[in-house]
Amino acid sequence: MIEWLRRQTGDPSRIHSEGMSARVAVEDARDRVAEFLGARSREVIFTSGATEAIAAATWGAAERRRDIIVSPVEHSAVREASREFVSPDGHVIEVSVDTHGRLDVDALAAALTDETALVHVQLGNHEVGTIQPVSSVIGLAQDHGALVHVDAAQANGHVPIDFGRLGADLVSVSAHKFGGPPGIGALLVRRGLRLRPLLLGGDQERARRAGFENVPAIVGFGVACDDLGDGRLEDEADRARIQTDRILVAAQQIDGVHTYGDPVDRLPHLVCLGIDGIEPQAVLLGLDQAGIAAHSGSACSSESLEPSPVLEAMGVDAHRSLRLSTGWNTTETDIDDLLDELPEVIARLRSLGQARVTLENG
Amino acid sequence: MIEWLRRQTGDPSRIHSEGMSARVAVEDARDRVAEFLGARSREVIFTSGATEAIAAATWGAAERRRDIIVSPVEHSAVREASREFVSPDGHVIEVSVDTHGRLDVDALAAALTDETALVHVQLGNHEVGTIQPVSSVIGLAQDHGALVHVDAAQANGHVPIDFGRLGADLVSVSAHKFGGPPGIGALLVRRGLRLRPLLLGGDQERARRAGFENVPAIVGFGVACDDLGDGRLEDEADRARIQTDRILVAAQQIDGVHTYGDPVDRLPHLVCLGIDGIEPQAVLLGLDQAGIAAHSGSACSSESLEPSPVLEAMGVDAHRSLRLSTGWNTTETDIDDLLDELPEVIARLRSLGQARVTLENG
Repeated sequence: MIEWLRRQTGDPSRIHSEGMSARVAVEDARDRVAEFLGARSREVIFTSGATEAIAAATWGAAERRRDIIVSPVEHSAVREASREFVSPDGHVIEVSVDTHGRLDVDALAAALTDETALVHVQLGNHEVGTIQPVSSVIGLAQDHGALVHVDAAQANGHVPIDFGRLGADLVSVSAHKFGGPPGIGALLVRRGLRLRPLLLGGDQERARRAGFENVPAIVGFGVACDDLGDGRLEDEADRARIQTDRILVAAQQIDGVHTYGDPVDRLPHLVCLGIDGIEPQAVLLGLDQAGIAAHSGSACSSESLEPSPVLEAMGVDAHRSLRLSTGWNTTETDIDDLLDELPEVIARLRSLGQARVTLENG
Repeated sequence: MIEWLRRQTGDPSRIHSEGMSARVAVEDARDRVAEFLGARSREVIFTSGATEAIAAATWGAAERRRDIIVSPVEHSAVREASREFVSPDGHVIEVSVDTHGRLDVDALAAALTDETALVHVQLGNHEVGTIQPVSSVIGLAQDHGALVHVDAAQANGHVPIDFGRLGADLVSVSAHKFGGPPGIGALLVRRGLRLRPLLLGGDQERARRAGFENVPAIVGFGVACDDLGDGRLEDEADRARIQTDRILVAAQQIDGVHTYGDPVDRLPHLVCLGIDGIEPQAVLLGLDQAGIAAHSGSACSSESLEPSPVLEAMGVDAHRSLRLSTGWNTTETDIDDLLDELPEVIARLRSLGQARVTLENG
């Protein structure tokens, strides 16, 4: 990447020899990304990230038929793009989820019609980690000739993705979740499917995504995929699973702490906790002061203190959750530290709360 | 940038301390970009590049009123986004240009109505370099309450831009034209103007452009602006102007070579030539073999061998042109080499053409 940043004057769409070497680098990276994701190289369209890939999938599919189906636990990028881009005479139809946040397949079957342009389904939920019934969704959608877009941006880098076997029409991924650079992602588009592009005005990406190609980031994306190949992603997932299992077991022993999401069929790297009587934001800050970078709210915009639509859709009696995620550099010692600090931070916050109540009462 | 690539785990939207330092870096870069472009910091929305900025400007403006006005010499990103995003009951209205490719202000005045949502006008043309009458366009559009988007992506880095003085509602720029990294650009949005965003689903960029922030590229954009500050861009423009003046004078002395675009009111770094009886692509390859990286066709997708819509709109009796552009690292010696090679390449190609005609005839 750094080499390409230094010689980034080679616009890969130009004909002269400088551009040629950039083109070779881009196509080599495309091959690596495709191989890692079980896709053909021509099925990979590089985008500026998952948000753009999701928007492009939605925009492209929306002109084909009237309606779009989503669930309330989809990422806001999916839900908002659907509202924004649905055909003027169409509707965004919401299908419900169960108490683990898993899409209700019967509800989907009832909602699908021959006017359904697109069904969005995530691979795994970004807040509670529940794996979605993607194969069932694809089977049902195909019966109605509807396209399926799988938002894999929360799962990618944590569970293996095989585009060919999955059978989805469209899949969105972002490179930074693989340990690649920011500012790059991909929309996988099933061979033979032609979609109107969101970004127009150039022949880049076989005229499917216009814009000056981000060669350094594309190269970095390819290298990141290589680094996770040969079973390394699976090894990381196993390690993450062991770590989050430890957190789940320990959390359930703390008084007034609940765990959300499917305990088995889940993304390996995250756990979602509800803590009675305490704002997750306060726990987060307490952990941060103890040197533990945790996370709250949805994956990409935790500034929002709005109640979580995911928990609401699951019918959980809590407005906000504490999302703890492990990274590739998370060690057993980090988990030890977290499990030492978490009960203490919770106890401290609760005693502060009681002190305030006492003061107010007396 | 390289430092930020190494520590890119800090998602600037997260609350914990890692994220905080990323946020500071992003806002510092925003201040630098804003200052360099004569804008307020809050007027800068970072995008993945100019193509996305153009699409976002068009998408945002298109819902406000019915029609969009463009000229045939606008970049294809502008023309195609207009066709794609114009209101379903609206039209894309084309206004003509003169023989230098300059927008016909009288034609614009006649085309503007109270149903005009947006007028697109480039700062300088990407093929022939002609500077557009942006101030007149803005004055006319304001009389009708229409927004004006200035595509500065071809001009930026070559002529100074002062968003405040310019008075446009929207301006698109790309960082790589400033010597910054690829994959980053900006849409400048006049204070007080609220546009529906193209990319949704996150609070990034004050909820005006969702998506994981590309911190390394944003930081690089800020540094690139700094590097061109304190009059350095103006110095570069003066140097480029002297070099392209040399090319123009020399080219006019070659038999059957024409120059296109306004000879005075033009971008300083490019010249556009028409060469009788020879395909520009062949000249380009000939120059490339001599070690001179030139350029043909539109700035970002020269693969297309379609006739140039810019030349066609100018009423020029040529389908394709040879665009030669200077860069910041272009030396007087490079110009000497070009001026040595260009007549020889043209003469060689012409003798090949004559040989073929002779063979065919006899």
